[in-house]
Amino acid sequence: MPIRLDSHDADFEQRFAALLAGKREASQEVGDVVANIIADVRARGDAAVVEWTNTFDKSDVAPATLRISDAEIEAEANRVGPEVVAALQTAHDRIRAHHAKQLPVDHIYQDHLGVTLGTRWTAVEAVGIYVPGGLASYPSSVLMNAVPAKVAGVERIAMVVPAPHGQLNPAVLAAARIAGVTEIYRVGGAQAVAALAYGTEHIARVDKIVGPGNAFVAAAKRQVFGQVGIDMIAGPSEVLVIADGSANPAWVAADLIAQAEHGAGAQSILVTTEKGLADAVAAEVERQLNLLPKQGIARDGWDEFGAIITVASLDAAVVLANRIASEHVELAIDDPQSLVPRIRHAGAIFLGHHTPEAIGDYVGGSNHVLPTARSARFASGLGVLDFVKRTSILGCDPSSLAALAEAAITLAEVEALDGHGRSISIRLNR
Amino acid sequence: MPIRLDSHDADFEQRFAALLAGKREASQEVGDVVANIIADVRARGDAAVVEWTNTFDKSDVAPATLRISDAEIEAEANRVGPEVVAALQTAHDRIRAHHAKQLPVDHIYQDHLGVTLGTRWTAVEAVGIYVPGGLASYPSSVLMNAVPAKVAGVERIAMVVPAPHGQLNPAVLAAARIAGVTEIYRVGGAQAVAALAYGTEHIARVDKIVGPGNAFVAAAKRQVFGQVGIDMIAGPSEVLVIADGSANPAWVAADLIAQAEHGAGAQSILVTTEKGLADAVAAEVERQLNLLPKQGIARDGWDEFGAIITVASLDAAVVLANRIASEHVELAIDDPQSLVPRIRHAGAIFLGHHTPEAIGDYVGGSNHVLPTARSARFASGLGVLDFVKRTSILGCDPSSLAALAEAAITLAEVEALDGHGRSISIRLNR
Repeated sequence: MPIRLDSHDADFEQRFAALLAGKREASQEVGDVVANIIADVRARGDAAVVEWTNTFDKSDVAPATLRISDAEIEAEANRVGPEVVAALQTAHDRIRAHHAKQLPVDHIYQDHLGVTLGTRWTAVEAVGIYVPGGLASYPSSVLMNAVPAKVAGVERIAMVVPAPHGQLNPAVLAAARIAGVTEIYRVGGAQAVAALAYGTEHIARVDKIVGPGNAFVAAAKRQVFGQVGIDMIAGPSEVLVIADGSANPAWVAADLIAQAEHGAGAQSILVTTEKGLADAVAAEVERQLNLLPKQGIARDGWDEFGAIITVASLDAAVVLANRIASEHVELAIDDPQSLVPRIRHAGAIFLGHHTPEAIGDYVGGSNHVLPTARSARFASGLGVLDFVKRTSILGCDPSSLAALAEAAITLAEVEALDGHGRSISIRLNR
Repeated sequence: MPIRLDSHDADFEQRFAALLAGKREASQEVGDVVANIIADVRARGDAAVVEWTNTFDKSDVAPATLRISDAEIEAEANRVGPEVVAALQTAHDRIRAHHAKQLPVDHIYQDHLGVTLGTRWTAVEAVGIYVPGGLASYPSSVLMNAVPAKVAGVERIAMVVPAPHGQLNPAVLAAARIAGVTEIYRVGGAQAVAALAYGTEHIARVDKIVGPGNAFVAAAKRQVFGQVGIDMIAGPSEVLVIADGSANPAWVAADLIAQAEHGAGAQSILVTTEKGLADAVAAEVERQLNLLPKQGIARDGWDEFGAIITVASLDAAVVLANRIASEHVELAIDDPQSLVPRIRHAGAIFLGHHTPEAIGDYVGGSNHVLPTARSARFASGLGVLDFVKRTSILGCDPSSLAALAEAAITLAEVEALDGHGRSISIRLNR
């Protein structure tokens, strides 16, 4: 059973704090193993990549077959049914259209002294996308990672995906084709991250690595950070549904189950002003779980990490939402726009009764790669801005340099950087 | 002597690649020590912070005196001369004015199906700023880290600065006051990063930590990443000057020296189309080094890491610049704007003969926290965007949900997430 909290209870603050602090992931200490794999790939290149891959994935890959050939991609992708291809294309087109609006624009201007100041945006040249293989294969994640890179103008998108027992996922390859991934390698784990970060004979290095992975992949990304850019370290997925008396308990229950079925620590929380709704949703979750073909994962997740919290008002719900800083926040109320300005920490907000979070996972157009584990306090979902970077521009002429010189030379003196001061004073006609 | 390369030489590619790959930092393996300190601070709070601080800094601080009192800040800051305060204020005002132009705007719209899509920007609530103490104290860095946070709307800016032997730097405290830092702690190293990330009795935790530090600080930031946000791991500073026959060799030499005097692996590279200029600059560097009061660091840096490269054309210089991806690129040519669009990877570009890099370090208005060690391939300088985050917005009504349902349900089936499909289908009136 999920925990039930009521903000009127004397021990509410204590129990809510415990819920916030609860760990939902087994922390695996894989840092040393991963450091060893990375060092091996740097030293021995493809030979190391192939050895680690065949060991972990029980596969039989050679350096020359690391890259999946165009013919093989086509053959696998053609096994996908036309309705799936159409759905992937719809998702792709909507994600592309929305992300195109995120492209930043250069801004260069002169200030009142005549100093030229500004920002120039340029795309990253080469990006690596990690795609988990095996049981949990998500073609939608391929689109969510590759499309923003493509929109940003990244020329080279190298995808890595493990092929356990040599098996590839046709829908993942179909999604990669639709998204314009330029090359695909059948390799995963820390060895894939190392190959992308440092390059090997058959895998050219990239500038940035994105995409979710297991503990080995997360540790590897952390270790190569700086050599290449990385995205966030993804944690278990989570949803917070804020509902009042206008909510449909069956719909809310369905959304809580959808989140819980991700497993691996996924968390579903309902915060509601109505005790009656809380009871109805709890009953509906039980009823609907029984209808789900594979109910085990969802039931375990709901029982272990689920929570139903009753509060006195929507104002109080907002306060909790900002403390939880959830990846997904659903506003199951009649006037969702009224709450939006007050929800400060959330990866994504889903408006009203007709926007199940799952629509955003696939075809809404917004990105489903979002900050987890309360990191919405400081992080954003994936987008075009993750695949571009800013170069700042500064330009003085003799007169504006003269106007700024004194202050700059004074600060250089304070910092005991005489050469800095001289590089300015040498240019002054005194 | 710095190395001299000429792009016409047969071994040029080999020697240039070696220059690119050269390590300029001693890599200290401090990961285990740092992990131990972080665990200790998490377990014992201020007691651990104080013990590590007094050990490393040879100071005598207690939990209750970790925070520097307002009276002490004022007393220290008042020791700074009025011309320095004025220079800090000028720098502050210019940095603030420029960064105010970086504030992003929300964008929410409806697409042709009636789906509401958009992006909302909100500020991080609490930020920690690491400021190195001791010999190298840089009040300008306080401004460069704190002002963008303030402009973004961050409410709480907690600064940590080690006080070796109990000593504080008055100019650093003066800069913190001007920038609106809300609290300052006399603590540094991994223990400061741990306290900011996890919180202690006297140091409340923050959401993001920025600012440069030594190997211990860098390792600590890497380890707490995820619990809090961090900025880039800063490496040695560097400048690339691209010059043609129009450049003044004395000015170029002064800029190369200014960079080299940072020491600790700082690198100065000149790429020029004119062999005569290369020779003149080399001679000028020697001449000017002899005039510098503390020439040791600059001379060592120039001798060990400096480089002068002659190339056939400015086009060839641009190609090398993009491979080097330098933190600072100076365009010491008459028409710098002609090259700007082709320089893809650079932290900042300085235009023309009258814009020494040092002006950007202090009072240009742009930020001097810039990507080093070739990370301009994927990273940007510090700015307002580092202190805000995006929440994505998605909203459907019954008709737009119906329009998107089929594609979403198809993809949920492919990913074997039945609960996802059901959370959509349950809302359809069929």
